Amino acid sequence: MRTLVRYLSLRCQQLACTICQHGDGGSSSDHCIYSESVSSFQSTKAKAKPTPMDHSTSLLRLIFLALGAALLVLVVRSAFRLPSGIGTTTSSLFDDSTTGGSCTRFSPWACRQGRSSTPKPPSHELDVPHHPLDPLTMREVNRARDLLRAHQPFASAPSSLFVHSLELDEPDKLVVKAWRKGADPLPPRRAVAIIRFRGESHVVAVDLDGVGAVTPLHVPASGYPMMSMDEQTSLCFAPFKDAAFNASLRRRGVRGSDVACLPISLGWYGPDEEGRRLIKSQCFSTEGTANFYMRPIEGLTVLLDMDTHDVLHVSDRGAGIPIPAAANTDYTTPAQGHEYLGYQKLRAPSMEPPEGGPGFEIVDGHMVRWGGWEFHLKGDARAGMVVSQATVEDPTTGERREVMYKGMASELFVPYMDPTEAWYFKTYMDAGEYGFGLQAMPLVPLNDCPRHARYLDAVFVAADGRPYVRENMICVFERYAGDIAWRHSESPITGMNIRESRPKVTLVARMAASVANYDYIVDWEFQMDGLIRIKVGLSGILMVKGTQYSHMNQVHRNEDMYGTLLSENIIGVIHDHYVTFRLDMDVDGADNSFVKVEMARQNNIVGESPRKSYLKATRHVARTEKDAKVRLKLYEPSEFHVVNPTKKTRVGNPVGYKVVPAGTAASLLDPEDPPQKRGAFTNNQIWVTPYNKTEEWAGGLFVYQSKGEDTLATWSERDRPIENKDLVLWYTLGFHHVPCQEDFPIMPTVSSSFDLKPVNFFESNPILRQRPTQENDLPVCTAAATVA
Amino acid sequence: MRTLVRYLSLRCQQLACTICQHGDGGSSSDHCIYSESVSSFQSTKAKAKPTPMDHSTSLLRLIFLALGAALLVLVVRSAFRLPSGIGTTTSSLFDDSTTGGSCTRFSPWACRQGRSSTPKPPSHELDVPHHPLDPLTMREVNRARDLLRAHQPFASAPSSLFVHSLELDEPDKLVVKAWRKGADPLPPRRAVAIIRFRGESHVVAVDLDGVGAVTPLHVPASGYPMMSMDEQTSLCFAPFKDAAFNASLRRRGVRGSDVACLPISLGWYGPDEEGRRLIKSQCFSTEGTANFYMRPIEGLTVLLDMDTHDVLHVSDRGAGIPIPAAANTDYTTPAQGHEYLGYQKLRAPSMEPPEGGPGFEIVDGHMVRWGGWEFHLKGDARAGMVVSQATVEDPTTGERREVMYKGMASELFVPYMDPTEAWYFKTYMDAGEYGFGLQAMPLVPLNDCPRHARYLDAVFVAADGRPYVRENMICVFERYAGDIAWRHSESPITGMNIRESRPKVTLVARMAASVANYDYIVDWEFQMDGLIRIKVGLSGILMVKGTQYSHMNQVHRNEDMYGTLLSENIIGVIHDHYVTFRLDMDVDGADNSFVKVEMARQNNIVGESPRKSYLKATRHVARTEKDAKVRLKLYEPSEFHVVNPTKKTRVGNPVGYKVVPAGTAASLLDPEDPPQKRGAFTNNQIWVTPYNKTEEWAGGLFVYQSKGEDTLATWSERDRPIENKDLVLWYTLGFHHVPCQEDFPIMPTVSSSFDLKPVNFFESNPILRQRPTQENDLPVCTAAATVA
Repeated sequence: MRTLVRYLSLRCQQLACTICQHGDGGSSSDHCIYSESVSSFQSTKAKAKPTPMDHSTSLLRLIFLALGAALLVLVVRSAFRLPSGIGTTTSSLFDDSTTGGSCTRFSPWACRQGRSSTPKPPSHELDVPHHPLDPLTMREVNRARDLLRAHQPFASAPSSLFVHSLELDEPDKLVVKAWRKGADPLPPRRAVAIIRFRGESHVVAVDLDGVGAVTPLHVPASGYPMMSMDEQTSLCFAPFKDAAFNASLRRRGVRGSDVACLPISLGWYGPDEEGRRLIKSQCFSTEGTANFYMRPIEGLTVLLDMDTHDVLHVSDRGAGIPIPAAANTDYTTPAQGHEYLGYQKLRAPSMEPPEGGPGFEIVDGHMVRWGGWEFHLKGDARAGMVVSQATVEDPTTGERREVMYKGMASELFVPYMDPTEAWYFKTYMDAGEYGFGLQAMPLVPLNDCPRHARYLDAVFVAADGRPYVRENMICVFERYAGDIAWRHSESPITGMNIRESRPKVTLVARMAASVANYDYIVDWEFQMDGLIRIKVGLSGILMVKGTQYSHMNQVHRNEDMYGTLLSENIIGVIHDHYVTFRLDMDVDGADNSFVKVEMARQNNIVGESPRKSYLKATRHVARTEKDAKVRLKLYEPSEFHVVNPTKKTRVGNPVGYKVVPAGTAASLLDPEDPPQKRGAFTNNQIWVTPYNKTEEWAGGLFVYQSKGEDTLATWSERDRPIENKDLVLWYTLGFHHVPCQEDFPIMPTVSSSFDLKPVNFFESNPILRQRPTQENDLPVCTAAATVA
Repeated sequence: MRTLVRYLSLRCQQLACTICQHGDGGSSSDHCIYSESVSSFQSTKAKAKPTPMDHSTSLLRLIFLALGAALLVLVVRSAFRLPSGIGTTTSSLFDDSTTGGSCTRFSPWACRQGRSSTPKPPSHELDVPHHPLDPLTMREVNRARDLLRAHQPFASAPSSLFVHSLELDEPDKLVVKAWRKGADPLPPRRAVAIIRFRGESHVVAVDLDGVGAVTPLHVPASGYPMMSMDEQTSLCFAPFKDAAFNASLRRRGVRGSDVACLPISLGWYGPDEEGRRLIKSQCFSTEGTANFYMRPIEGLTVLLDMDTHDVLHVSDRGAGIPIPAAANTDYTTPAQGHEYLGYQKLRAPSMEPPEGGPGFEIVDGHMVRWGGWEFHLKGDARAGMVVSQATVEDPTTGERREVMYKGMASELFVPYMDPTEAWYFKTYMDAGEYGFGLQAMPLVPLNDCPRHARYLDAVFVAADGRPYVRENMICVFERYAGDIAWRHSESPITGMNIRESRPKVTLVARMAASVANYDYIVDWEFQMDGLIRIKVGLSGILMVKGTQYSHMNQVHRNEDMYGTLLSENIIGVIHDHYVTFRLDMDVDGADNSFVKVEMARQNNIVGESPRKSYLKATRHVARTEKDAKVRLKLYEPSEFHVVNPTKKTRVGNPVGYKVVPAGTAASLLDPEDPPQKRGAFTNNQIWVTPYNKTEEWAGGLFVYQSKGEDTLATWSERDRPIENKDLVLWYTLGFHHVPCQEDFPIMPTVSSSFDLKPVNFFESNPILRQRPTQENDLPVCTAAATVA
């Protein structure tokens, strides 16, 4: 008990996998089987941990833990006076015992997160699908699981069946587009599962209706499925059973109980790394801080077999590099205390809807309607957030018009720029390796999203095939940021006293994925003028490198630091982030063309004009994929239109949407470098491919340890025709990140975005008749309770 | 009277200079001399207009107009039921008779605009300066005017003295920096005036203290001063006295009373255009729409002498081009009516401060304090908005630290991309030719800026040297846009139940200039993490070209349209916008260095690493101006730091700020093209120069008809040392604008921005200890009056 108190009084910071496993004790939900809690907890101290795949049950331990947990809530709360609904929701660790946990055999971490704004979250256990694109419900997941476990060869050893992905197999586009709510029954529901069974990967389709046929599908030649969350969680214990690893810790004077390890995907660097699922693990000291990422045990790298959890190799290149100090690293509310200093006391204003509630609605859990827009929104374990069937109302005709069939983050690529032994392999693909949606934790009301946001939950699937709920995974809110939708004043030049202005109002759908240290905030922002802005924000914590240096004056002039000295013994290593979006544009119908409107200097013939030159725009329709590969150039600018060549405006322009890049970065790695071959989908900023249902994931279906044989770059080499076809637009947003001290110990958000913008899609400004704001349109507000 | 009613019932749309001149009748303020109203009004019908420089007074006319105005308020209000406080504030045209106009002899248009949120605006007549950088007060302007008029040679003919600019001559930086409020008296107040007197330009300094010495200063060799607002206003009547011009109108079947003309700066295209102040004028039909810009009388160009208002040449190249129809062009509230359609009914949320009032203060009218930031803010007739002495509180030490001594838009360059006779010369420089601040009209409360914004007025100077007040020129507001300042969640990988997030709160200072058709919204946004975002938004109305085409199928395949067919007979001509900012950075002191941190691929030796390549950052300190000329390249990226080489962080990094470009555009014109020579300050995106008080205007002090002899590009050719010097950073933000139908008849705002971002300026994340939002921190709101 004393040990437990000590652990939790350090605010969950030590070997926290364990603590979370403790936290879900006490529920009797039929989705939960409690098992490994104590054994895995003790393992880190005993340094003789059983693998988390062992599943012994202990009722006594369970009772002990439930009582311990209840006591701890009191201890921790009284010690830290935690505010409710903000920051570290330590208390919610224990809420499962009362709200009914949705944990699974392998996934005790898949417990409900507290949702402060809605005390009684819906259980989702009785949910039914309402729309052909609705994700699998909990019941459907369970049905698929039953069917899979009954299917040969899996039926021979169902406990050896590990689910890496189990999702809706979306019906064909034509079927979905033809479906009318109320008039048509839902098309047949079908799931697609990616499974590991006895060391082999399987891709199978599962018919959820009728007899429930299970059909094997094509399995990629190289690479492995996305890691399951259970694997990622359990792998953090694996190094502790290795004597060489533990010896390394001892040499550095670190106690095993103060160590947390992360599972690090290792890319692919040649044949030595083929034939089995591998992973590397690196570790950190959790002593004295919740921000263990700032305390790397530098140079200690463990190579593991992901299937057996065997330690294959331990590399220790960090002798002499101290573990950076814990001081000033903890960013959590309890560590900071509540004495806000100076201007940090400032309180945020609130976005208040005039009508007492938001100006949008979410119908049947997934259809969002707002400001002319209608779209289907859902969470996805791999892609994160998926926007489907985005249509906009034409303000002139009232017609509902198609814009995009499906939009999502397809893959991320995060290469670190340090070629040394303990760093070269860090070239993450966060969607295909870790699951961009799996890592999207519950959003924090009032801080991640404003007060009147609405939240969507997601149902994900654990390794044992059971569903669990990720609450508050997505939020939707209406935004007024003080910006101007359009305006015009007449100046004294004409003297007309015109002062027209309209406030800009938008709708934001947001998720935030925490892929270990980093946090990615993804916003889809819909404007009333038809523009969609897709924004990626980076926050969270840097992946840092330990160093012997505590001051730049110790560094030799020519030494390559691979980054910035952020604090004593801490280097923030340079890295890039690329997020590749797959945008299945259907502008007024599926068949579209890609038009590059090139802007180039046109020189005038002498005597033709007093001007020597002007900028001329020339339209080039892309015939094949090759014509549509774009590397952006400031001095060779273009606009990039997706048009419907068969539909024209009144005066004869093809209706279209354009992709408008903003600040971005391009990968500079050698195209033949293994990580860049795997991340070859970042070789261009824009690609266009003909629609192909199997080409959803820019890095390939099996990204893990892939060689880059199944990427957008390889598909596109076929150079297929794309003119007047159902086409898919790919856009890659990039960041170069040279860390600076302001990124320590947690990074202020950096964002970049791109736009999908109507271009001759509407006959005229679609918000011409937008309502201006008058004083009596606004809500009546009085000061906050804590002020008044 | 009947005529007046007819005019106003068309909502100020016809020859609106006239209407505005009528509007200010009736005041007895001592700043107002009413004179030309009726004569100039009649002139457009009589086609025998006296120049607006004639100034006969008529008491009878005055009484007639006052009565007429009162009656018209009733007529117009009953006819259109104008809402209060929004949109077209036609009613405020007449408010001067009760609030006391601040009009000047030449500037009847310089009347007070209605300020709906504050019924009794301060008069500013008794204002005194509180800070060395405070702009000239009304009393100081009057004192300067008296001194100028008493000074030889001006005293010989004070009525021939035309003031083009009269502003504070800011004291030396060292003096301003040394000044301490309360402890020190204000440094001597001094004005600098740019004057035209008997056909000559003069630049003079005026000591406002003591005897009031007037000292002539250097006058540039080429170019002319910024036009006065009086000139711009009066020039719109000048063409009507020309027979050829009127014959052209008649040939097109347009009545003179339905015509409004704009003054168009003509650039410089060779010696023919030297030796006198020239301007071109083009005209539009005001019939049936407030948006006359969409009804160009294409091809009709009048060349005028700006001093004499003589018509020098009339060019009519537009025979056969119809004037586009008025239908669907009017965007004003009265024309749209109040029946908002479909989703355009949507009401904007409100940003509500938790404390019942904003979280910032404006001290002594100009010093803004918020969230660690403190800066001096003022309007400037030429630059628009000027931010000075921006300092930020170090959250660790509490020390106030310098960031930027002065930041402002220095010049704009807007070349149109049509080399034909009626268009080639359109290459505007909106600051140095028209006055970016002069064109900043009063902001519209609730629509241009949110509810709890505070407004700053500006005092500008009319051609006769008298001051007038531009009310609500700048607004300041606190923003919460639903964004995240920083966040981190721990995922199940580590299992720590950490959910930390902080809302992003910022402070925005905004102005919006309406340079004839175009509206520029300029935001300076200050973040609590030390970042400053400078954003330029474009809205307003396109400069369009008449065409015979009403459908694209009439256009020959190879014909260069120079733009997009937006509606029947209307082409939106391609153009660029460049806004060049002058940023006098003083990072922890005046002496700084510019460091280019170049990121380039570094190849590994075979065998050195499994990686072939990585990205390496190398610091290059710029020694001279040449080293700091930057053309951005996506594939040759760099960071651009302004550092203080003598001040290091604890671990030895030089403290700095970096300029972070976002989406931008570069000019592609021939460098030897006359407009590009004049706009050569856009040849690079970044320049750094040593501080020089006389180098404030990137296009030169006298931009009008300049040849490009006095630009940033020419100064910078001297290649002066800039290492560890007081330096000035120049950044140019660009837009290519290929119009689309959505831009018709008024453009949804398009924005771009760049950032000034701390880079190792703070020891760590400065908002680590920011307060999270809790439910009871938020205001208590109920639905709006119009909803409840």
